[in-house]
Amino acid sequence: MTDPRKNTRDIFPPTGTELNAKSWMTEAPLRMMMNNLHPDVAENPHELVVYGGIGRAARTWKDFDLIVETLKDLEGDETLIVQSGKPVAVVRTHADAPRVLIANSNLVPHWANWDHFNELDKKGLMMYGQMTAGSWIYIGTQGIVQGTYETFVEAGRQHYDGDLTGKWVLTGGLGGMGGAQPLAAVMAGACCLAVECDETRADFRLRTRYVDEKTDNLDEALEMTARWTKAGEAKSVALIGNAADIFPEIHKRGIRPDIVTDQTSAHDPVNGYLPQGWTVAEWRAKAESAPKDVEKAARASMKVQVAAMVAFHEDGVPTVDYGNNIRQMALEEGLENAFAFPGFVPAYIRPLFCKGVGPFRWAALSGDPEDIYKTDEAMKKLFPENTHLHDWLDMARERIAFQGLPARICWIGLGDRHRAGLMFNEMVASGELKAPVVIGRDHLDSGSVASPNRETEAMKDGSDAVSDWPLLNALINTASGATWVSLHHGGGVGMGFSQHSGVVICADGTPEAAKRLERVLWNDPASGVWRHADAGYDSAIECARDHGLRLPGILGH
Amino acid sequence: MTDPRKNTRDIFPPTGTELNAKSWMTEAPLRMMMNNLHPDVAENPHELVVYGGIGRAARTWKDFDLIVETLKDLEGDETLIVQSGKPVAVVRTHADAPRVLIANSNLVPHWANWDHFNELDKKGLMMYGQMTAGSWIYIGTQGIVQGTYETFVEAGRQHYDGDLTGKWVLTGGLGGMGGAQPLAAVMAGACCLAVECDETRADFRLRTRYVDEKTDNLDEALEMTARWTKAGEAKSVALIGNAADIFPEIHKRGIRPDIVTDQTSAHDPVNGYLPQGWTVAEWRAKAESAPKDVEKAARASMKVQVAAMVAFHEDGVPTVDYGNNIRQMALEEGLENAFAFPGFVPAYIRPLFCKGVGPFRWAALSGDPEDIYKTDEAMKKLFPENTHLHDWLDMARERIAFQGLPARICWIGLGDRHRAGLMFNEMVASGELKAPVVIGRDHLDSGSVASPNRETEAMKDGSDAVSDWPLLNALINTASGATWVSLHHGGGVGMGFSQHSGVVICADGTPEAAKRLERVLWNDPASGVWRHADAGYDSAIECARDHGLRLPGILGH
Ligand SMILES: NC(=O)c1ccc[n+]([C@@H]2O[C@H](COP(=O)([O-])OP(=O)(O)OC[C@H]3O[C@@H](n4cnc5c(N)ncnc54)[C@H](O)[C@@H]3O)[C@@H](O)[C@H]2O)c1
Ligand SMILES: NC(=O)c1ccc[n+]([C@@H]2O[C@H](COP(=O)([O-])OP(=O)(O)OC[C@H]3O[C@@H](n4cnc5c(N)ncnc54)[C@H](O)[C@@H]3O)[C@@H](O)[C@H]2O)c1
Repeated sequence: MTDPRKNTRDIFPPTGTELNAKSWMTEAPLRMMMNNLHPDVAENPHELVVYGGIGRAARTWKDFDLIVETLKDLEGDETLIVQSGKPVAVVRTHADAPRVLIANSNLVPHWANWDHFNELDKKGLMMYGQMTAGSWIYIGTQGIVQGTYETFVEAGRQHYDGDLTGKWVLTGGLGGMGGAQPLAAVMAGACCLAVECDETRADFRLRTRYVDEKTDNLDEALEMTARWTKAGEAKSVALIGNAADIFPEIHKRGIRPDIVTDQTSAHDPVNGYLPQGWTVAEWRAKAESAPKDVEKAARASMKVQVAAMVAFHEDGVPTVDYGNNIRQMALEEGLENAFAFPGFVPAYIRPLFCKGVGPFRWAALSGDPEDIYKTDEAMKKLFPENTHLHDWLDMARERIAFQGLPARICWIGLGDRHRAGLMFNEMVASGELKAPVVIGRDHLDSGSVASPNRETEAMKDGSDAVSDWPLLNALINTASGATWVSLHHGGGVGMGFSQHSGVVICADGTPEAAKRLERVLWNDPASGVWRHADAGYDSAIECARDHGLRLPGILGH
Repeated sequence: MTDPRKNTRDIFPPTGTELNAKSWMTEAPLRMMMNNLHPDVAENPHELVVYGGIGRAARTWKDFDLIVETLKDLEGDETLIVQSGKPVAVVRTHADAPRVLIANSNLVPHWANWDHFNELDKKGLMMYGQMTAGSWIYIGTQGIVQGTYETFVEAGRQHYDGDLTGKWVLTGGLGGMGGAQPLAAVMAGACCLAVECDETRADFRLRTRYVDEKTDNLDEALEMTARWTKAGEAKSVALIGNAADIFPEIHKRGIRPDIVTDQTSAHDPVNGYLPQGWTVAEWRAKAESAPKDVEKAARASMKVQVAAMVAFHEDGVPTVDYGNNIRQMALEEGLENAFAFPGFVPAYIRPLFCKGVGPFRWAALSGDPEDIYKTDEAMKKLFPENTHLHDWLDMARERIAFQGLPARICWIGLGDRHRAGLMFNEMVASGELKAPVVIGRDHLDSGSVASPNRETEAMKDGSDAVSDWPLLNALINTASGATWVSLHHGGGVGMGFSQHSGVVICADGTPEAAKRLERVLWNDPASGVWRHADAGYDSAIECARDHGLRLPGILGH
């Protein structure tokens, strides 16, 4: 029997101005789903895996084909319904409704664990959507570079007077997301030593210029780091090895990095974390044949790695969980002080979320890099005072290789997002851009996620686990006229630990799109502001007042 | 400090044709939320409790007032956002979007249990929405009479050749839902002995003609049942007592009912089930002061009751779990064969769900019973062949006292619901009805719920716990233009065990409403048909084909 998830086809999204579907509103999800599986974008496209362990774009190749076909046929008042990567239905809606509605990986809480998910997944009833994999707005590693960059910059601000020259970051994992770390560190002025067990992943990062050097020798890697930091040069090295071996070894040698974190796919103990003493090939084979054995061994190794991280933390090294739930895994393995070091959101990101600031992004459906360069320039003109944004856009243009459809990310918030969207829409209308653009964001955003070990860790009022908010976010974006909306479970931190929502909207240059853009790109970040205002954050309350949000239960009638 | 949830106000929804809000689209949720708290509708309106343990209509009285005020002001292109009973925001949407979007009681799965919920609830951060309490389409006990009636009729068909004359049902609980049991049994031709510990509840059912007699003496109750069944008379008695005492006692005496079930609020072990040996007053007091003690004692008693139910089952008495999760509780207490008897959905209801048939309902915003009588007649004309429906409507008119705004329920499915909705809209347009009607349903419906111990127990493909479906249902209804849409967690079976979605749409007689009615009342039941078609039920696949549903991943392109 052939595996319905394996194939050797290479998928390239259509580019240019000719439509394959009946309108740009349906061409957009078509191109973006295919873009998620572009060989330069996806981690393992032949198995439909986009990033983050087994985060997929479609449940099977048959489903992929059916989605493509259905989108090509879809009318402007119809909506495609996707359930865990399978196109289950087409329904009549209306022009202002989304063209695609998606729910991936959602399980009733009592059954919301990897065991039950894997059982259903094996039966062909489910798909893991991660965050932007199953919701078709992953744009390659660039997507996370900005977030990681902001995080390192903020860490530098808090711990090293805003100057990371001569400092170095120790981390693990160079996958779809983790691969951003060496580049982001370098952009922020620091060196980086990233431990990655799978050499092909490291090679991919070398090829796309995200990491500078590669070695399989710890001494050599440490020597490089020492040399660069001494010279005040910001450079990075990928060390082929197991983070669970390397982290404790570095600690044992008495060497202290300046920042410690990790981005292996610890959230998924079967497919995401190489156990100590195993080869990668053995690991991949056993993930299929003996998943329980893999899980057990992986969890034990995670505990070892987290123990080393706690040790660095106790020695005063700024140490942070980068949202892969590795502390939870170690805790469950009996490491009682696994949560000694904080998550990166409460440590560095929450103040941004309070203003609705998060990973805003857009992609050029034309496929032409010039379209993105033009939007880069336009953004600088639109926000002349935001020098931080200018710096980022300049660096991004210089250092970030596009993957698949050219795209750009920058963290902006309420009051700015809809202005950017309306401007892009005008640029499409005037012909300045060759084709429409889509505008979206990560599910890791201000109002779109409940994830108590990551985005909503340590909320001021204790509402970490309340997931009304992301569900409302999806309903609001649907009601506001987004082009596609998704509701996922288990992204980032794994089954049982998060619920989150995605949104993408297409700017096709029409006045109707302008109205939708204005609503969606206002309401979406606003939902983050009020979620944080409700939790009692002063800066969110202030932001809500400044922007005239109407929040009866929060600000009064 | 005054409790923000207690008050002595009596709430009556406005009636008549004069608007308090700016349009019927916002007047409708206003009247329906208030109707949920009408003294004749709600179980404990002064504490905002509508039914089902602590299922509330608003988080606090302040939130109630804010919702009322906000709805009065809401424009036709605005949407009110309600998070666990609190009106958090008003956002700009458009005329075809819902006027209210609601998410109640949702928790990230790993934290989705009563302990964590109660902690948040106590802090004022949450509210338990049950199914139709927090989504404002509870219509009193009538709402469940039809479902219970259908269930008893189907049980009679399966076990007693379609004739329940001279048979009797043993059950527990006469609350908001459970109170329907004696009347439904009698309508189906059977007698009923219902054990209820709270005399005021039994009195309420006597007053509204849902039960015929009351006693606190088991011998007397059994004597009545014996007399009635012998005479072939269908009558019912409420026995004041504890089901955990009475069920085993009846079994011990060698007496065998013809059907055994239960509808105490076992899903909520703190607030829903009286422990053996406790008085009701003690129980209510300790639910506040020592919830852990109550829970422990209640769970132990549930185990005793379920053991008796298993014993009846083993003796060949048709025994069925009526959707209160009591088997799960007993299982967790160590009763290994707690799931020996089935749930009522796989036993009797699933064939209806396969055709999108479920608890369709409507309410007359005018407050005038004549409006409902007119719709009763119109329904008979619209469905001349459906004699089962005719019988039901006749019996309902004769036996069911309206509670609050006059309303009607009947189980109809895909292909019929939108026709009923369009007809009502025309009746409003022509002035035949005095005011608009709202049309909704229970969350316990074909496509709107994932609840592995109840609605989705024992699905053919094992997809019981997949909750993509109810989430999609909410997104679809939002995209189709329902008037309000809700997403809840934990209804019926309690925290951790269900996710579900509600929908209500207002027929105000306008052509715009007609378009929305056609979409919503088609897509909503259709989502149930395809959910069951996807699970492999032949009758659902056939129904999908008959109705021309477009289901690419299920029926092929
Ligand atoms: N902080 C954030 O903003 C954020 C955002 C998205 C995802 N995440 C989380 O970060 C993690 C990584 O995401 P990703 O998309 O890069 O996943 P990925 O699966 O694409 O990459 C994980 C990488 O870790 C490597 N790895 C596994 N075990 C290892 C070990 N023991 N030692 C060294 N390397 C090992 C794998 O070979 C792989 O290359 C996930 O848990 C994800 O959920 C965080
Ligand atoms: N099957 C269905 O269609 C369906 C629909 C909705 C709700 N339910 C479930 O049915 C249950 C009852 O719902 P409800 O709205 O009537 O709840 P409710 O809380 O209004 O009523 C429960 C009743 O049980 C009584 N009771 C509690 N413990 C008792 C005991 N030990 N002995 C005798 N009586 C006892 C209470 O006094 C109360 O009157 C809930 O669990 C609910 O989730 C089932």
